[in-house]
Amino acid sequence: MSARFERVAIIGVGLIGGSFALALKAAGACGSVIGVGRNPDNLARARALGVIDAEASDAGEAAEGADLILLAAPVAQTPQILRALAPRLAPRALVTDAGSTKRDAVAAARGALGARVAQFVPGHPIAGAEASGVAAARVDLFRGERVVLTPLEENGAEAVARIEALWTLCGARVSSMTPEAHDAVFAAVSHLPHLLAYALVHAFAERDDHGQLFDNAGAGFRDFTRIASSHPEMWRDICLANRDLLVAECLRYREALDALRAMVERGDGAGLERLFAAARDARNAWLQGAAREAGGSR
Amino acid sequence: MSARFERVAIIGVGLIGGSFALALKAAGACGSVIGVGRNPDNLARARALGVIDAEASDAGEAAEGADLILLAAPVAQTPQILRALAPRLAPRALVTDAGSTKRDAVAAARGALGARVAQFVPGHPIAGAEASGVAAARVDLFRGERVVLTPLEENGAEAVARIEALWTLCGARVSSMTPEAHDAVFAAVSHLPHLLAYALVHAFAERDDHGQLFDNAGAGFRDFTRIASSHPEMWRDICLANRDLLVAECLRYREALDALRAMVERGDGAGLERLFAAARDARNAWLQGAAREAGGSR
Repeated sequence: MSARFERVAIIGVGLIGGSFALALKAAGACGSVIGVGRNPDNLARARALGVIDAEASDAGEAAEGADLILLAAPVAQTPQILRALAPRLAPRALVTDAGSTKRDAVAAARGALGARVAQFVPGHPIAGAEASGVAAARVDLFRGERVVLTPLEENGAEAVARIEALWTLCGARVSSMTPEAHDAVFAAVSHLPHLLAYALVHAFAERDDHGQLFDNAGAGFRDFTRIASSHPEMWRDICLANRDLLVAECLRYREALDALRAMVERGDGAGLERLFAAARDARNAWLQGAAREAGGSR
Repeated sequence: MSARFERVAIIGVGLIGGSFALALKAAGACGSVIGVGRNPDNLARARALGVIDAEASDAGEAAEGADLILLAAPVAQTPQILRALAPRLAPRALVTDAGSTKRDAVAAARGALGARVAQFVPGHPIAGAEASGVAAARVDLFRGERVVLTPLEENGAEAVARIEALWTLCGARVSSMTPEAHDAVFAAVSHLPHLLAYALVHAFAERDDHGQLFDNAGAGFRDFTRIASSHPEMWRDICLANRDLLVAECLRYREALDALRAMVERGDGAGLERLFAAARDARNAWLQGAAREAGGSR
C-alpha cells in the first residue's frame, strides 16, 4: 500500500484544502497538485504560495488523470462537484472530502458515483480556524488534531487505509465512526456552539446600545465568539446539511439554559456553584486528557 | 495629587488582587502590601512570590493604618468585608474594589460606611483569566485592558483621580459609567456568555454520550468554553448580585436563539448566510477597533 499519489486534485483551495496540499507536499506524499476554485485571485495566490502547481477550470478537468481528489469546498457544493468529476474519474482514483457533515456527503456520493461510490472515502478533519482562504493555510494545521473518517460498506480496506495514511502523514490522529454518529456528535460539539456564538454577536450588533456593548466586551467575549468570525457560506451549508440534528441540539440546549436561568432567578446559590464547579471540572479534565492524547501522538 | 500609597491592603489575594499588587510594586506606587484571605496556603504563596509583604488576620486588622484598600474577593463577601474594615478606616484612606458587579458594591458601601462612603470608589478591571489564585497573578495582567470606574456622587474629584491614576500605572485604560449602566452592560457582554458556556459544558457532562462528545470536541469548543473554567464561587456571586439584569439578558438571548433555530428549521439559507456574515463583520470590526485602541494606549 502506498501513501503516495502522483496527481492530487484539490477542489476548494482554502484553509483546509490548502493546508492539506502543503502538508502532503512537505511529507513528499504527492507529485503535482491541481487546484480548482471559484475565486481566481485566491487560486493565483495558491499558486504563488506554492500550494498548488496548476489550476483546472472545473472539477471534471481536475479529475482527469488525478489519483486523489479532495473536496474542500462548502458542503452544499458536494453533489455538483461529484457529478462533474464522475465522468472523468479514473478507475483506481480515490476521492475524499473534508466536509463538516457526512450524511449529506455520502448521499451525494451515492447519487453521483453509483457503483463507484467505493472510491469515495468520506472524512472530516477537526481542525480549522475562523480565518479562511488559502492565505490562512498552514503546513502544520492538522498536526496533533483529529480526523474522523466515516467509511462506507463499499470502501475496500486498502482505500480506507490509504486515506488514513495521508492524514497520518499530515500529523493528524485518525478515528472512524458512522456518518450518522458523526453528524450527531458534531451537531452538539461544533455546529451548536457556532450557532450560539453567531446568535450572540448578531443580537448585540442589532441592539441600539451595540456601541457601548462592544466597547466593554473583553477577552472572555472575544474567545467565546471567536467562531462567530467563521466563514458564513460554509456555516450556512453545514447548518442546512445537518438541520435535523442541529435543531434537536438547539432545543436540548434551550432546556439546559432555561434550567440554569431558573436557578439564577430563584437565587439558588448552592445549585449554581455546584453546576459551575461540575462544568469547570469536566472541562479541565477534558483539556488534560486532550493534552495527554496530543502529546502521546507526537 | 499623589498616585503613591504607603500601605496598601489587598482583601482577597487572587488573580486580580495579586496582579494589582504586582503592578503597583513594579510602578513604585506603593510602600508595603498587606494581604488578607481565607486560604492560608494561598497567602503563604503570595508572600513567597513577593506579591504581599505581610498578612493580616482579617479586613479590620488590614485596614489599620492602610491608606489604600482593594477588595478583590468574590462579591458576596463585600458587605461583611466593608463592615469589618469600617471601624478602623483612616479618614484619608481610600477603598476601591474589583468586583464584576457594581450596584451591590455601592449598596454595601452605603450600608457599611455611611457618611464615609465618599472614601469608596467602585471599580471593575475588565481583565482576568479562567485561572484563579495568586499563582496566576501577573504584573502585566491589566496592560492594555480596560478598567471601568463607577464613581459615586459623594466621591471627591481627587479620590477618583487617585484611583484612576493607579489603574493607569497598571497599564489599563480607565473609563467611567454609572453602577446601573455598568451592571446592564456587563450582564450582556460578560455574565451572559459565562452562563452560556457553563450551561453547554454542564449539559454535555451530564449526557450518557459525554465521552464521545468530549473526545470529538476541537479548538472551537475549547475557546467557546474557556470561560466555563472560571471560578465557581466568584461566578455564583456575580450571577446572584446581577440576577435581575442577567435573567433579562437570558430571555433576550433565548429569543435570538429561537429566531436563529427557526431559520435553520425552515431551511432559510439566504437568511442564515446574511446573519452569519453580519455577525462576522460586527465581530471583526470590533476586534480591529479594540486592537487600534489598545495599540494607541501603549
